[in-house]
Amino acid sequence: MGETFPMNGGDGDYSYTKNSQYQKRGSDSVKEMIQQAVSENLDTKISSTVAIADLGCSVGPNTFFTVENLIEAVQKKHPSKTLEFQVFFNDHSGNDFNTLFSSLPPERHYHAAGVPGSFHDRLFPRSSITVAHSSYAIHWLSKQPQGAPNEGRIHCLEAPEAVLRAYSDQYEKDLGDFVSARGEEIVTGGLVLLVFAAAPDGIPHSENINSVLFSYLGHCLMELANEGVVEKKKIDEFNLPLYYPTEGEVRRVIERNGCFSVVKMEMTYPYSEIKVRFKIGPFRAALEGVLIACFGNSVVEKVFSKMQIRSDEIVERLMAVHDFAQLFVVLKRK
Amino acid sequence: MGETFPMNGGDGDYSYTKNSQYQKRGSDSVKEMIQQAVSENLDTKISSTVAIADLGCSVGPNTFFTVENLIEAVQKKHPSKTLEFQVFFNDHSGNDFNTLFSSLPPERHYHAAGVPGSFHDRLFPRSSITVAHSSYAIHWLSKQPQGAPNEGRIHCLEAPEAVLRAYSDQYEKDLGDFVSARGEEIVTGGLVLLVFAAAPDGIPHSENINSVLFSYLGHCLMELANEGVVEKKKIDEFNLPLYYPTEGEVRRVIERNGCFSVVKMEMTYPYSEIKVRFKIGPFRAALEGVLIACFGNSVVEKVFSKMQIRSDEIVERLMAVHDFAQLFVVLKRK
Repeated sequence: MGETFPMNGGDGDYSYTKNSQYQKRGSDSVKEMIQQAVSENLDTKISSTVAIADLGCSVGPNTFFTVENLIEAVQKKHPSKTLEFQVFFNDHSGNDFNTLFSSLPPERHYHAAGVPGSFHDRLFPRSSITVAHSSYAIHWLSKQPQGAPNEGRIHCLEAPEAVLRAYSDQYEKDLGDFVSARGEEIVTGGLVLLVFAAAPDGIPHSENINSVLFSYLGHCLMELANEGVVEKKKIDEFNLPLYYPTEGEVRRVIERNGCFSVVKMEMTYPYSEIKVRFKIGPFRAALEGVLIACFGNSVVEKVFSKMQIRSDEIVERLMAVHDFAQLFVVLKRK
Repeated sequence: MGETFPMNGGDGDYSYTKNSQYQKRGSDSVKEMIQQAVSENLDTKISSTVAIADLGCSVGPNTFFTVENLIEAVQKKHPSKTLEFQVFFNDHSGNDFNTLFSSLPPERHYHAAGVPGSFHDRLFPRSSITVAHSSYAIHWLSKQPQGAPNEGRIHCLEAPEAVLRAYSDQYEKDLGDFVSARGEEIVTGGLVLLVFAAAPDGIPHSENINSVLFSYLGHCLMELANEGVVEKKKIDEFNLPLYYPTEGEVRRVIERNGCFSVVKMEMTYPYSEIKVRFKIGPFRAALEGVLIACFGNSVVEKVFSKMQIRSDEIVERLMAVHDFAQLFVVLKRK
């Protein structure tokens, strides 16, 4: 079983609930694309019940918007049928399902269920899911890539080739497990819709927006090491379990699995102004869990204070690199 | 929507997790009966997936034992088939699903899902559940019976006839809603297995073990009213939303609904020594939620202290009344 670092639960200042506006922006940008993908490609024997899964749903509210969009799309595709929808909200068992359940829209037109567990494993019975969706989740690795020394850095961007290889190997294994589990769970003609952060082909890693952010995070951690607040060894051994694949890497894994045809794969850049308006809050909400697990609360508090102080400098640096890239992928079960 | 008073979450001294041994005893006592009921009566077209629901599951561990017993029973019934099991753990959305999910048996052989919501409403798609089970849950009413003055008392036992009628009306409506929702959700030939506290026919209410306990609870609250700790009006207006039906009442509601045949209805007395060994803890864990919602934390703390002081007296009084009665009901979807 991999390590699990859920988004921050509850509704505090750094909760995912209050800091998922970037992810919402990402979801919004594919709203129409999702409608179109369902309309053009969903091709299952629809009986009376449609099962929808949101994988890596976190605690809302984004997952609720996504699910309503999917339901609307399926209903438009089958206007003459009276359909019942069962929606499975999946995330790690450490996710705050209590918050998720208490914030379910009261007027929803679907039967809701929460499914705890890693989407790198099986979650549902064979051929039981009509449409699976996952937004801003599959760029998380199941564990920290190991085996390649990564001194003074916390990620593979700007790291030696061996570190990058450890990351891409882990990613291939994880995406392979994900696709293989979904291959068993999705009905013939059913769809898997994926939205995640990616790396545009042909752009050097150092020009990636995340490279900049993780570099700053790494530098701030190293400053704390120099101040004696945190052990340098801990930083050397730590690898942020996030990976941004290229289109080619994703396509290769899916084709090797063989269960799905790639109906669509589209790179977009939905955050053109994110760089000017960069805020620490959402960045912190997404990464805090994994950092606290390794370095503890007080170090994480200090590291984000340091980043906060440098935010003008960070914004300036971000302006010089390539826009944040998002990959939208539609897979159809053969 | 009714009021919801989940069992105590977490794993503290008065948590349901640490105080559900009576309920476990009740479940254990029907373990064999459940195996037999499934073996003799389950009569569905079993495909590859079997869907099991535990309604009012609380936070475990009892629900896990129950579910494993059910799976074993279904597997024994179909020894030659390779079956996949999907288990839906249902309780109110205020239930501590985080604790439930984090305590799921790691070596389980089923796909787990949590379903938040009242079992008096629809929870699942039409004809999607093979076996539904509910243990020590359906004697909880969806709300406090209203409309009949019940001065100085907190329950219908030992109360005027009008109060008893308000309770039995509410119970009939609630059980009716429960059976009607399950009628839509259970597949033809599928089963509903119910275990709950009941009232033996022909025993006066004052001879019911719960009558004694609720009387003491009421007296202790009234003492606090006399001490000025709690408003008497609050006690007058409060009605514990628990009801113990007779076999006749249960049968009437099920027959009126018409979707199910009553395959079995058996009254047992599984707690012959509960009276000698009466402990405040489990009683408190089950009732605390609803009492705190009305009277607040500090009053509830005080009322259980008062009961604790009187526990010898309570045990003596319990010895003089009828044993605790449990009804086991097996319904088969026509």
